[in-house]
Amino acid sequence: MSFTLAEARAADAADPIRPLRARFHLPEGVIYLDGNSLGALPRATEARQHEVVTREWGESLIRSWNDHHWIDAPQRIGAKIAPLIGAKPNEVIVTDSTSVNLFKLLVAAARLSDRPALLSESGNFHTDLHIAAGAAELLGLTLDIAPREKLEGRIGADTNLVLLTHVHYKTAERYDMAALNIRAKAAGTRIVWDLSHSAGAVPVQLNASGAEFAVGCGYKYLNGGPGAPAFLYVAESLQERLVSPLSGWMGHAAPFAFTDDYVPAPGIARFLAGTPPILSLIALESGLAGFEGVTIERLWSKSNALFDVFHALMEQRCPQLACITPRAPEVRGSHISFAHPNAFEICQALIAQGVIGDFRAPDVIRFGLTPLYLGFEDIWRAIDLLADILTEGRWRDPQFAVRGKVT
Amino acid sequence: MSFTLAEARAADAADPIRPLRARFHLPEGVIYLDGNSLGALPRATEARQHEVVTREWGESLIRSWNDHHWIDAPQRIGAKIAPLIGAKPNEVIVTDSTSVNLFKLLVAAARLSDRPALLSESGNFHTDLHIAAGAAELLGLTLDIAPREKLEGRIGADTNLVLLTHVHYKTAERYDMAALNIRAKAAGTRIVWDLSHSAGAVPVQLNASGAEFAVGCGYKYLNGGPGAPAFLYVAESLQERLVSPLSGWMGHAAPFAFTDDYVPAPGIARFLAGTPPILSLIALESGLAGFEGVTIERLWSKSNALFDVFHALMEQRCPQLACITPRAPEVRGSHISFAHPNAFEICQALIAQGVIGDFRAPDVIRFGLTPLYLGFEDIWRAIDLLADILTEGRWRDPQFAVRGKVT
Repeated sequence: MSFTLAEARAADAADPIRPLRARFHLPEGVIYLDGNSLGALPRATEARQHEVVTREWGESLIRSWNDHHWIDAPQRIGAKIAPLIGAKPNEVIVTDSTSVNLFKLLVAAARLSDRPALLSESGNFHTDLHIAAGAAELLGLTLDIAPREKLEGRIGADTNLVLLTHVHYKTAERYDMAALNIRAKAAGTRIVWDLSHSAGAVPVQLNASGAEFAVGCGYKYLNGGPGAPAFLYVAESLQERLVSPLSGWMGHAAPFAFTDDYVPAPGIARFLAGTPPILSLIALESGLAGFEGVTIERLWSKSNALFDVFHALMEQRCPQLACITPRAPEVRGSHISFAHPNAFEICQALIAQGVIGDFRAPDVIRFGLTPLYLGFEDIWRAIDLLADILTEGRWRDPQFAVRGKVT
Repeated sequence: MSFTLAEARAADAADPIRPLRARFHLPEGVIYLDGNSLGALPRATEARQHEVVTREWGESLIRSWNDHHWIDAPQRIGAKIAPLIGAKPNEVIVTDSTSVNLFKLLVAAARLSDRPALLSESGNFHTDLHIAAGAAELLGLTLDIAPREKLEGRIGADTNLVLLTHVHYKTAERYDMAALNIRAKAAGTRIVWDLSHSAGAVPVQLNASGAEFAVGCGYKYLNGGPGAPAFLYVAESLQERLVSPLSGWMGHAAPFAFTDDYVPAPGIARFLAGTPPILSLIALESGLAGFEGVTIERLWSKSNALFDVFHALMEQRCPQLACITPRAPEVRGSHISFAHPNAFEICQALIAQGVIGDFRAPDVIRFGLTPLYLGFEDIWRAIDLLADILTEGRWRDPQFAVRGKVT
């Protein structure tokens, strides 16, 4: 396939969701291929943050907990995420970080069973494995880490819980959620899904696929801003059986009764712990407004078109980089990754040209395909610049070997 | 003591830290006596939040983790809190909520001992008791809850850890931190201090008093904004012996190496878990700028002067309300509380007049004395309005019995 700049422009012009791009601030001179790591700033967020700081905090002060509904924000924003992941509004809550939410859910869910092992995948996003190790140690469970190809076979009579990331952070490989939920159920166990690289770009049907537990990130495709609070999902039928180990006052049935004894709130609210960070929460709510009027299916269709163009152009112009993401849409997410021994330097050389993807150790460059605001011309230009960097060997410049604290 | 409006104005005019008030936005028509619940908006925060949203997130996007030092924010802001609580800069970190930080610290610290009981105070701020109950259950410990007058006597050979709130959220009673640390040490146990109602207004000397563990809130006297992230302190000598049960990637020795195994970061950074909420974190950093050029001792001296005026005027003008806060400065914090069977309605009637304090169930009105921005004339006017409400019985109007979700 050959795909020209003119064809890329024509594809953008024909794209029915192209107008959504205007909802975001995209800096001049930047092609942003990292919306799967930190989503771009929605234009609505700037004004809303100003309002929450100056009017709600500044003017209404403590009264805003009631008057501006801060107290309902975790449930209200959870309900806005719910349709993006195929859940009911009362099944999702937003609070804390993905790591903290995962800990709560693993501990609460593991207590439903007396089986001895937590099972997860080697090379899973590492915070998931670390949090699972911490939870397992506290509960006296073993943590069984298996490579992806052996994982399904390891689900057995010893398995208390399985922790899986729906879309792999590096390769973008995607699990068949419905099939694995059935497999787990047949084995008498349950799965906790991490949707960090799915929510907001990849179709997820938690209810329809029989998923019972999930967590996910607010700052990637959901555009909630740096370190945005994360979400937590528990199927309605299980909510009353779970008690969070982080039994803080905001998850109490009556937080303002100030009683010594803990009584979990009904439903999903019991997974709140301390006071949530309101400024960051409200930024996530603004980010979610970027999804108004569009379905995940429509976004996924655009993502696939972006993927196909990206893949084809890379084969044509940058064959030095080996694609490690599967091509078939049903087994992958919304990013595309390539391996190269000098991935770090190539990534830095691209950033110097305004093309932002990210390096993932030891040898991967990852490009996020965010259907809300990425266009076909963006991809054409990014790969054109990458091809120059590779053919001219510009990544060999010593400046591109300098590492920051992050990556 | 009689204290006139003219005298109140003279006291403000003579107050050497009166100019600090200009660092805060105080709404027209409001006398804010709730800075111990949600601190007022620092003027610097408005501009800084705009910058972090539009320039750092909007323009620099993911690069801000390095370029705008987001990655260092938890340690950098912790180091700014350190001098306010008598700690070394490398002993304090800011992340998560007070409840979550307390959980981490209780579990990590309890593992240093094989003793069976966590000890705390009945009527302690309830999230502390709830979190302690959750931690105790996971660790197989008992939670021993004793009334304040019996607490010291209960510290014994069974005590694994003691959890104490330095200044009581309702009565403002203050523990003698140094004496209790000695008492605990003699009994072979340790204390976790909750500084939520101390930090930023009351003198705290963690190092000098031999304190080993502490947590505290960012949104009260530290003026970090609604739900601001909380801080966590571990004495340098103990940091390497503790491992957080919330072993997330940000507390890993090499978060960007993406390895399956968890290796805790050196020092206090191991208490980070997931990605911290940057917008809320940076707001806390702006809030701390309000303390520049003033010592806690100077603030405490002002707080005491405010307290004495408040106490005297209440005795004179509102004797119907019984003060439940001890008068002696060395045994109390920076708020003053009163009991009345109709505290809720009186509090609402005051709020309707622009005087904001808060109700604490079942029968307490609490007024925060925030030395950075509260003046003597504010107190005079607040009590003048309160006296009218009481003498005219205006709180009996049915509108003041309507309850919001919060309080």
